[in-house]
Amino acid sequence: MDSNSFRPADRDQLAQQTRELTDRRAQLLAGSYRLFYREPVHLVRGQGQYLYDADGRQYLDLYNNVASLGHCHPAVVQAVTEQMQQLNTHTRYLHERILDYTDDLLSTFPAEKDWRAVYMCTGSEANDLALRVAQAHTSGEGVIATAEAYHGTSALTSAVSPALGSGQPIAPTVRLVPAPDTYRTGIADIGTWFANQVQSAIDDLRAHNVRLSALILDPLFSSDGVLPGTPGFLAPVVDVVRRNGGLIIADEVQPGFGRTGERFWGFARHGFVPDLVTLGKPMGNGMPVSGLVGQADVMASFSDRLPYFNTFGGNPVSMAAAQAVLDTIRADNLQEHSLHVGELTRQALRDVAARHEVLGDVRGVGLYTGVELIEDADGRVPDAGLALDVVENLRRQGVLTSTAGPDGNVLKLRPPLAFSSGNVDWLAGALDASVHEAVTNRRARAGS
Amino acid sequence: MDSNSFRPADRDQLAQQTRELTDRRAQLLAGSYRLFYREPVHLVRGQGQYLYDADGRQYLDLYNNVASLGHCHPAVVQAVTEQMQQLNTHTRYLHERILDYTDDLLSTFPAEKDWRAVYMCTGSEANDLALRVAQAHTSGEGVIATAEAYHGTSALTSAVSPALGSGQPIAPTVRLVPAPDTYRTGIADIGTWFANQVQSAIDDLRAHNVRLSALILDPLFSSDGVLPGTPGFLAPVVDVVRRNGGLIIADEVQPGFGRTGERFWGFARHGFVPDLVTLGKPMGNGMPVSGLVGQADVMASFSDRLPYFNTFGGNPVSMAAAQAVLDTIRADNLQEHSLHVGELTRQALRDVAARHEVLGDVRGVGLYTGVELIEDADGRVPDAGLALDVVENLRRQGVLTSTAGPDGNVLKLRPPLAFSSGNVDWLAGALDASVHEAVTNRRARAGS
Repeated sequence: MDSNSFRPADRDQLAQQTRELTDRRAQLLAGSYRLFYREPVHLVRGQGQYLYDADGRQYLDLYNNVASLGHCHPAVVQAVTEQMQQLNTHTRYLHERILDYTDDLLSTFPAEKDWRAVYMCTGSEANDLALRVAQAHTSGEGVIATAEAYHGTSALTSAVSPALGSGQPIAPTVRLVPAPDTYRTGIADIGTWFANQVQSAIDDLRAHNVRLSALILDPLFSSDGVLPGTPGFLAPVVDVVRRNGGLIIADEVQPGFGRTGERFWGFARHGFVPDLVTLGKPMGNGMPVSGLVGQADVMASFSDRLPYFNTFGGNPVSMAAAQAVLDTIRADNLQEHSLHVGELTRQALRDVAARHEVLGDVRGVGLYTGVELIEDADGRVPDAGLALDVVENLRRQGVLTSTAGPDGNVLKLRPPLAFSSGNVDWLAGALDASVHEAVTNRRARAGS
Repeated sequence: MDSNSFRPADRDQLAQQTRELTDRRAQLLAGSYRLFYREPVHLVRGQGQYLYDADGRQYLDLYNNVASLGHCHPAVVQAVTEQMQQLNTHTRYLHERILDYTDDLLSTFPAEKDWRAVYMCTGSEANDLALRVAQAHTSGEGVIATAEAYHGTSALTSAVSPALGSGQPIAPTVRLVPAPDTYRTGIADIGTWFANQVQSAIDDLRAHNVRLSALILDPLFSSDGVLPGTPGFLAPVVDVVRRNGGLIIADEVQPGFGRTGERFWGFARHGFVPDLVTLGKPMGNGMPVSGLVGQADVMASFSDRLPYFNTFGGNPVSMAAAQAVLDTIRADNLQEHSLHVGELTRQALRDVAARHEVLGDVRGVGLYTGVELIEDADGRVPDAGLALDVVENLRRQGVLTSTAGPDGNVLKLRPPLAFSSGNVDWLAGALDASVHEAVTNRRARAGS
């Protein structure tokens, strides 16, 4: 379909259609549903790193780590279709798929520990169970998370997810610590600084007679503004937590499955071994599949006393999707691809940043990049309004993405791993034009 | 594949394979995973109401309301495959599927109220959100559930799920009431009796300064032992809860989507309109799809203040599966089928019960039947050991099912809706033989 084949009348029809769909959402869906963009995008098709709207327009997807291999990846479609035709049932019966997949999955984990897996359907469910396992193992309730963390949408996980906004209450047994942000704080030894923050939080829990259970963290600090930091910088905080009897929960929903390029898991970049690891979004390339992998003795503290059964978790169809994802990451060398194309991406974006003083920082690892929008080069003052304008302009340039961070001023660039070196120019050009337009419009508004 | 074509050597191989798979589960999966049956079933294929093991043996599935239309139903396979090839993404963009499905779903709800839907992946997630919505709307925290209820596996929902066993703590803001069991209590006006139980629980919450939020109930009381009762008997309890400012959450994961035959929803059998309705297991015929439907003002109390976003919830593939389920229920008249075949089933099982005094009660509605195993006809004393023996014997007769109820003595018969009148004889004959064998073996053991 060629977008040029549409006449103006068709475009009016499309705008009308968008309004109708938006109105129907308001009539049918709960108010929790929020659309991206001032003018919502109406998608009809996806392939690889591309999405297509009802107007036949192609977008470059810079937002989606769920369609991690790429939208509608044929290996996943085929695996799911074949297994759906064969059998889809729960784990109270024996089936090879869950075992073969777990064998394969655990081969990516540090070999020096004995691991056990359990499967569910969403990252929220994985983190909900991880927190309960940590509490069972430590007999503690205290949880430490970062100040703009997101770990899920269940009652328990939303209460450790300040990224949900000021309306979301944080549990009284939770302490929030500032994320390890070198750019914002200007602190060179951010690892020691972060460990000290966590020690203070542990001290505060103790002062309130709350026993420490776990530090839960995304090793990429995605919601906190994409803060990959230097490999290994999390070693001091891990020591602090363990000295105080706490566990480490690595939330790998963002960095996992090869995205960082350097290692298969975000925690592995930092050379530590978590007690519990939660898996989600990219795991099934869009199939609702998630998992919790934990050290055997930690998992046993829960399963020896408390039951857990997830009806859909670990079913053969979910496992077929997850297996196709693992197989394709290896067959197509997507981890190496992520490392390589990620570096090219940041080189190109840094060239763009050199031309715009409002682009204060370009950082990332593999195919996860954050771009900091600031008021000017000296102050490093976050500019959320500008970031939103840039996101809207990028949409008009055919690039879909969003923002992150406590100030909402960091562009979050997290494409399907199908994003290729050939796409870098489009992204860089679009960012250049989008920032230029946003700054020009702002100057015009200021002058008028 | 014909099971007669296997020689003894093959059977030894199969037994060896079963042992290997069981051992691998212990090595790879968390201890929470439990298998059905003393000798686990190793399934490889499913179709309609049938499952097939690695030995080529056919089983009649009397357990599975997830594969509600039938295992591997072609309409669902086709809908999922086609949508997976087209687009699978989140709800921050416009898409017709979620709206068309919601339109269709809400047309099955009482027309006098204004409803809004939100989608997630599991029944646990639906109930977790329902409880949070009820708490937001009432500013209360108190929840009432039945004494053997199961509502989910998240932190919040497991704390209102006594069916998880004595290891599972019940939240201090939860009160449990005995389920409305006419057979066990011998009380004729069970509706008034149940309402009085709930009133006492509300009084106790009040005495502890806990404000009532909601009564959550499965209108079939499946986990409590399959207690459909007379249509309308829940009216008094609904009055009591509303007079005390509480909401009613109908957990339709078991009775929903036409299973009761009489009405499309379990609550509709009783002629009341819940404030919140949760949907799960049968909704996507095996795809992890769930939903919460609530009255618009109740939902707004939550969404005006608190965020909710479920990455996989309501994606086009999940909605395609759910749409195929709704379409097939209608096209194949599965609700009427459920009513008709359910009646035939209970007639046949009552004939069997007439020959065995240990079969104390056969009750149910549509394709959901409970059969009570008791020590003798007079005492009505529950016999869980006998029920387990019967379940094991049924497995050897090729019939898969399980037990429910506070005493674990109720056979829970909940087949795919594909279960047909032609299957009734198999079930009835298998139950007859299984009970006969269990009773005979018991007498032999008692005599030896």
